[in-house]
Amino acid sequence: MNEYYIIKESALRDFTENVFRSMGCSDKHSTLAADVLLKADLRGIDSHGVARLTGYVRLWEKGRVNAKPDIKIVHETPSTATIDGDAGLGLVVAPFAMKIAIEKAKNAGSGWIAIKNSNHFGIAGYHALMAVEQDMIGFAVTNASPLVAPTFSTERMLGTNPICYAFPAGKYPPFITDMATSTAANGKLEIAQRKGTDVPTGWIQDKNGNTTTNPHGLKEGGSLLPLGSDREHGSHKGFGLSATVDILSAVLSGASYGPWAPPFVAFINPLPDQPGQGLGHFLGAMRVDGFRPVDEFKSHMDNWIDRFKQATPINPDQRVVIPGEPEYEAEIERRKNGIPLIDVVVNDLNEVAEKFGIEKLN
Amino acid sequence: MNEYYIIKESALRDFTENVFRSMGCSDKHSTLAADVLLKADLRGIDSHGVARLTGYVRLWEKGRVNAKPDIKIVHETPSTATIDGDAGLGLVVAPFAMKIAIEKAKNAGSGWIAIKNSNHFGIAGYHALMAVEQDMIGFAVTNASPLVAPTFSTERMLGTNPICYAFPAGKYPPFITDMATSTAANGKLEIAQRKGTDVPTGWIQDKNGNTTTNPHGLKEGGSLLPLGSDREHGSHKGFGLSATVDILSAVLSGASYGPWAPPFVAFINPLPDQPGQGLGHFLGAMRVDGFRPVDEFKSHMDNWIDRFKQATPINPDQRVVIPGEPEYEAEIERRKNGIPLIDVVVNDLNEVAEKFGIEKLN
Repeated sequence: MNEYYIIKESALRDFTENVFRSMGCSDKHSTLAADVLLKADLRGIDSHGVARLTGYVRLWEKGRVNAKPDIKIVHETPSTATIDGDAGLGLVVAPFAMKIAIEKAKNAGSGWIAIKNSNHFGIAGYHALMAVEQDMIGFAVTNASPLVAPTFSTERMLGTNPICYAFPAGKYPPFITDMATSTAANGKLEIAQRKGTDVPTGWIQDKNGNTTTNPHGLKEGGSLLPLGSDREHGSHKGFGLSATVDILSAVLSGASYGPWAPPFVAFINPLPDQPGQGLGHFLGAMRVDGFRPVDEFKSHMDNWIDRFKQATPINPDQRVVIPGEPEYEAEIERRKNGIPLIDVVVNDLNEVAEKFGIEKLN
Repeated sequence: MNEYYIIKESALRDFTENVFRSMGCSDKHSTLAADVLLKADLRGIDSHGVARLTGYVRLWEKGRVNAKPDIKIVHETPSTATIDGDAGLGLVVAPFAMKIAIEKAKNAGSGWIAIKNSNHFGIAGYHALMAVEQDMIGFAVTNASPLVAPTFSTERMLGTNPICYAFPAGKYPPFITDMATSTAANGKLEIAQRKGTDVPTGWIQDKNGNTTTNPHGLKEGGSLLPLGSDREHGSHKGFGLSATVDILSAVLSGASYGPWAPPFVAFINPLPDQPGQGLGHFLGAMRVDGFRPVDEFKSHMDNWIDRFKQATPINPDQRVVIPGEPEYEAEIERRKNGIPLIDVVVNDLNEVAEKFGIEKLN
């Protein structure tokens, strides 16, 4: 098993900013990109935090990430816009786009932004929560490396394509659902691989389309399964959601979709004959007071949360979990006590530090 | 087993309009409400068509449906609005709201409407497809009678809360995903009950929270399970989606949410101390050309659909199903050949006809 290092937030933040600066990102972009990654680590979504930093560096080395992007609006109406990310880090492009969504929402009630020519944007929740801070409802989806097979197929056609909705509450933290549209995310397979344990049936299928408990099944030509796992349990719904995310993010924006979505791992080249540019995202913000007064809404959100917390539990030791609450609690704890990183991740990061000639993590 | 009657579309439409007129609905509302119900029958979504007509009548008899509603906008911005349905049929209130969403989208790029004080709105797809006809993207969600338990709970807190996204395509029919956020919808249980067969594990749990294959489990105090079925297979995601639908539809609009959502069956009274008014919906329309030219979008949608149709199948006899295609094909077939209705439904409808003194179905 792995060893863990506990790294203070400020140290990890400084380190991460240094890496982005070493890639040639501006100070402003380095700070922002580090903030997005750190948010994942702070919220306990370890698969999407600094564990991915070396992946971004390798994409930049391959010339697939532009460290000095000229991000711009290429099309717009009062409540919609399309943005060209100029192959920049999604960590920078997506917050740029969400700011525009929020501005549009201030003026028109809502703002919806399709983004093309981008890269992996970190956790969807970061972007959706930007809207919540303005008493808006936040929405964020993105397409991603093709790893998921549609129902009835063996072919990897879709990413784990997350959907995120975030709502402000009153006395409670924001309600936020931020979920891959596959049954299990890739990060969970990696944990099973490291532990050498089987995975549950219904997470992956082998290259012939049979469900398998082999945690290496994906590497051996298999694919992740859409939420629902099989047709009988609604995998066509997971497929429909994932496809919707792909269409909003890429067909609508002019990014590459389906099996053409550029892979996050730098050693796999994007397919030839790309139908669009880079990865795509789709972000939205709606003013709560575009529908009802903010105080009213928040008080009913609190009532909703109170009632769901009181739902009769199956087991009295495990009550209903309000989406977003565990991550909120993790953030408080990790800001105080530091962020646990496994040795593999720390070693990878220190190799990057060595390459760039910057200070190591420990 | 049941006998089937094949009823011509025009006969079923006339009959349905007559029933709504007998309830006191205006000619215009009767035509519209019948159109929404017929759309479900034509598209093969039998559980949401005229099979529900007697349910609407019973709600009206209980005074829970207002046949002459004064539907109005109570709050708005250029791209958002809240509508009070005045306890009207959702079949009438939702299309009224979608028309406003489309108007707002024409002017501001997108339109988003929260609706309170409504009733069951039929299939979500009807409303979303109204936007598609205008080269817009359609979105429709609604909360519903509480039948679904959150992950870790035995309590029915949420409806089957559907999510629908619809996109126009070029040479292909619209891509439309219209799905309950539970693993199985109630209609599928009813089919198993009629056939006397077990249901798969993962569809329902008994009153103690154990999965059961008893198709009567729901009636015996159990509950439907969120998409994903159990925690290991992502039921917290299905719960998160269902909760999102509840919040958008009801907390945002001022309708009743969670366990307070008024039941569709007239013999169960709504809970006391309602936190809002009636059922809620949330509808949206976004102009495709708010993001990119319509022709470009449609040509990439066709390319997306072509590519997914060619995805390597597990079994060559069952290729990937494009969401919305089976329903589109059913509609062509049923418009031509008529709509199959089981004898139970026909008998129910003829009882209503007798009560109202209108012509029977056959």
